Amino acid sequence: MPNGAQALMKTLVDAGVDVCFTNPGTSEMHFVAALDSEPKMRAVLCLFEGVATGAADGYARMADKPAATLLHLGCGLGNGLANLHNARKGKVPVLNIVGDHATYHTRYDAQLQSDIETVARNVSPGFVRTAQSTADLCRDAADALTAARGLPGQVATLILPADVSWGEGGVAEAQRPLPAPAPADDATVAAIAQAIQQAKASGGQAALLLGGRALREPSLRAAARIAAHSGVKLLAEVFPTRLERGAGLPAVERMAYLAELAGVQLAEVQHLILVDAKAPVSFFAYPGKKSDLVPETCTVHELATPVQDTTTSLDKLARALGAQDAQPTLQAATRPGRPRGRLTAEKVCKAVGHLLPSDAIVVDEAITSGLMLGRFTAGAPRHDLLTLTGGAIGQGLPNAVGAAIACPKRPVLALVGDGTSMYTIQSLWTMAREQLNVTTVIFNNASYSVLNVELERVGADRIGPKARSQLDLQGPVLNFAQMAQGMGVHAVRATTAEEFTRALEEALAQPGPHLIEAVIPEALSGLKRKVLPWLLRSLPSLPPGVARALKRKIAPP
Amino acid sequence: MPNGAQALMKTLVDAGVDVCFTNPGTSEMHFVAALDSEPKMRAVLCLFEGVATGAADGYARMADKPAATLLHLGCGLGNGLANLHNARKGKVPVLNIVGDHATYHTRYDAQLQSDIETVARNVSPGFVRTAQSTADLCRDAADALTAARGLPGQVATLILPADVSWGEGGVAEAQRPLPAPAPADDATVAAIAQAIQQAKASGGQAALLLGGRALREPSLRAAARIAAHSGVKLLAEVFPTRLERGAGLPAVERMAYLAELAGVQLAEVQHLILVDAKAPVSFFAYPGKKSDLVPETCTVHELATPVQDTTTSLDKLARALGAQDAQPTLQAATRPGRPRGRLTAEKVCKAVGHLLPSDAIVVDEAITSGLMLGRFTAGAPRHDLLTLTGGAIGQGLPNAVGAAIACPKRPVLALVGDGTSMYTIQSLWTMAREQLNVTTVIFNNASYSVLNVELERVGADRIGPKARSQLDLQGPVLNFAQMAQGMGVHAVRATTAEEFTRALEEALAQPGPHLIEAVIPEALSGLKRKVLPWLLRSLPSLPPGVARALKRKIAPP
Repeated sequence: MPNGAQALMKTLVDAGVDVCFTNPGTSEMHFVAALDSEPKMRAVLCLFEGVATGAADGYARMADKPAATLLHLGCGLGNGLANLHNARKGKVPVLNIVGDHATYHTRYDAQLQSDIETVARNVSPGFVRTAQSTADLCRDAADALTAARGLPGQVATLILPADVSWGEGGVAEAQRPLPAPAPADDATVAAIAQAIQQAKASGGQAALLLGGRALREPSLRAAARIAAHSGVKLLAEVFPTRLERGAGLPAVERMAYLAELAGVQLAEVQHLILVDAKAPVSFFAYPGKKSDLVPETCTVHELATPVQDTTTSLDKLARALGAQDAQPTLQAATRPGRPRGRLTAEKVCKAVGHLLPSDAIVVDEAITSGLMLGRFTAGAPRHDLLTLTGGAIGQGLPNAVGAAIACPKRPVLALVGDGTSMYTIQSLWTMAREQLNVTTVIFNNASYSVLNVELERVGADRIGPKARSQLDLQGPVLNFAQMAQGMGVHAVRATTAEEFTRALEEALAQPGPHLIEAVIPEALSGLKRKVLPWLLRSLPSLPPGVARALKRKIAPP
Repeated sequence: MPNGAQALMKTLVDAGVDVCFTNPGTSEMHFVAALDSEPKMRAVLCLFEGVATGAADGYARMADKPAATLLHLGCGLGNGLANLHNARKGKVPVLNIVGDHATYHTRYDAQLQSDIETVARNVSPGFVRTAQSTADLCRDAADALTAARGLPGQVATLILPADVSWGEGGVAEAQRPLPAPAPADDATVAAIAQAIQQAKASGGQAALLLGGRALREPSLRAAARIAAHSGVKLLAEVFPTRLERGAGLPAVERMAYLAELAGVQLAEVQHLILVDAKAPVSFFAYPGKKSDLVPETCTVHELATPVQDTTTSLDKLARALGAQDAQPTLQAATRPGRPRGRLTAEKVCKAVGHLLPSDAIVVDEAITSGLMLGRFTAGAPRHDLLTLTGGAIGQGLPNAVGAAIACPKRPVLALVGDGTSMYTIQSLWTMAREQLNVTTVIFNNASYSVLNVELERVGADRIGPKARSQLDLQGPVLNFAQMAQGMGVHAVRATTAEEFTRALEEALAQPGPHLIEAVIPEALSGLKRKVLPWLLRSLPSLPPGVARALKRKIAPP
């Protein structure tokens, strides 16, 4: 009879959970030993738990099934919390397996003893359980998987005491079937169809705000038929879990991070229809500004909740509108030219748009530097875009690890800020060890650039040198190429657009991981550390209508 | 009238909390802006929260007062949790300031919203509070500081909503006086004195187990008088928060990490007297082995709890025994010779003992590689030793940052394993930015070496290649010198004892941070991945009596 760990391994693999991102310690040694009992289980060692959890997040976004993490007690879970937060906010399924002391050992309050369940509740409000016996372990695991895989996807945490793991008498458990999600009911669909028709008749605007699974191709096409037929605007939530985009797919306009911009995007919208999305709120609060970004004159409708079938709901709405045979507008294939001259963040984005290969996975955690990425890649070959769903920085590199393991044949491009990359820089080693096809671009502007904007936005206006020094990454300036080489990743620094573009070309042409450090001027220096110039700077990244409206608002003639 | 953040800054500085280890985001921008209103506050930017919290831990161990941390919401706190755990277990005072969304913003469940109090309870069971108003903020802060600074020292978490921070009408609050700790009562002292006398009369053994503040010089001297007079053995807890040691101080025998060894250390002890320490328990549980390491024939006494005055309690005990004028045995000055030849972990420790400067602070997170450190530095000039109190690896480099800021004139030497260093490798940048006098030694054996021993200890004996690969750091082998250079720290690799010793000499002679990567063979390879060879290998690190007893037990003739 297998021990607990061996039976758990079989339960996982039988449920299709065949990748585990690990950072184990002593209490997880039986789980580690059981790896060899299951040839199908792939264990990917990470040197820090934030890498393991962020990789599990990226994996599940692309594989549409959870990976397991293997974490070492409360402290290991703590280290992994930020990226689990991103998974939670992105409705991404993850199964945490958190090793614990043997059940009889906890009362001794040994050094690593802490209250694991308490920590876990922060990211796993829906499922935290400490396994109590070897016999029931796999039932617990099946329950955890059911919780993780159901809609909305969630982070489920199974705490595995060492003696439950090493005990004899484990019994593997089969995966539970999941109910198919229901679509929106007829009354909801009819009411929303009526709102859209009224808006159209009165010259007003309705918008579909797509989030979660509604940003995949089937839902996008259904939504685009509605847009083509009824003049509905297509918006995407600000930080999509996974957005399918590029030439040949319907284009959607992403909500802006800056509330000032989002306000312009929503200003004319009279009916906002949510599809697996929540009504837009400001990322942070700002003195004297509203947190709720929906204009008071706008009515919010919910077509599909996160537990409903988005595509069928949109199809029903299309039929109710008579839009079922409308031809959706698709993004034309178009690429920017090859950038030249002094390197800037914009030129990096331009080079990416110029070269992005077919079927790429783009992980965007470039913060201020990525402003032009959406525009320059809009007409590039079809690709998936993964973003910072929960706002907990340090997601980009680990997400790229997970995405590359989920989709080994697809090129992965991670675009990451210098500040954000340092939270989980250890990801590079796993990329090297697993020889993942990830090209990492670090925007090195030696600054927490976004915080300079935020300082003014929160009204903290009298800024002295000590405050400024908290936002810059000078003295010494990080050398990412050196760090990457130290972790076994081929890396170069680029200071001109020509160098960068050539390096990107080479990286994309060769298998295995590469890093390109783009040495760029700080996006916002001196007088430019203000919101107004930043908004002006954003104009070219916006759809022409939004840009015009914004320009009228912020820079009246 | 100051805003909340400015009043808080004044409250902190007036209470002597004049260092803040920061990793801020938007919700902390007013606190950041307020830095310039208080010239006495030093803000030390860290690129990852685990660095900030571990630095606050190391700072307080050396400064005997708390530093503040500045963390960004629940995710920032999560990233800092592991080193806060070490502080909690080490009874070290830390004041966490965790920024939060504005009070009115939380209900919108924005991207970074999570339950911060829940996470904080894991490390701050004694004090977690969310400030509710600007007027009361500084009273909350004073309460938090009182909680942190009282005995036992603890981690106090003050959650600071952005609007409480930016609101007008902050009122600075004075520090509360702390009651002086009481010593052991007369009855306890008398009973323990009697036990010691009885043990002495019957030829049995009594031992003082010193922990926490009892490992500082005044308590050590009092304990050593008792030892000299009454034949009591002096033991130190396995992972001291701060142990004062070296030539001219009383020597104490540290409890061993391995339960097999600790059992030998305690085998003959009939009376174990705790002084700010807990009765030894096994670090982890092992199948078929006891968690409680105290022999059944041993009686445990508690002379001073963690809230009592250890030195006065020991003085009282000395008087009760008539030991008050006894001459304590002090460690003689002695150093090992200069090591030569192929570099090994032992030779690194030997070189450290050969060169350790006066008044150094040694941070030991070398795990298996540091086995001989205690022995080779025993007679070195007086120094402080900081260790892994809570077992959450990633403590060494951040602790060194904090210790160097607390004691800018003292040399800091951080000895860290390759595996452990990678959890908080970002510390190197802060060392460079602040030009700290820290010499970091990384033992690079390309392995989670200790886990190889643990695999056998937990009885996970049939180990296949997948399991083994989870414990090695091969393919690629990390190059720490390159990584350090990438973060602005002068760094070299050493592969011979001569190279290493020369590099250490040079690093200690020059101000600012240095890193020496000691490339050493894996401590435990092939057949040596067993507990028995490891125990045999430990023999030279042990006091002769313990080594002889252990040898009799594990390798009978």
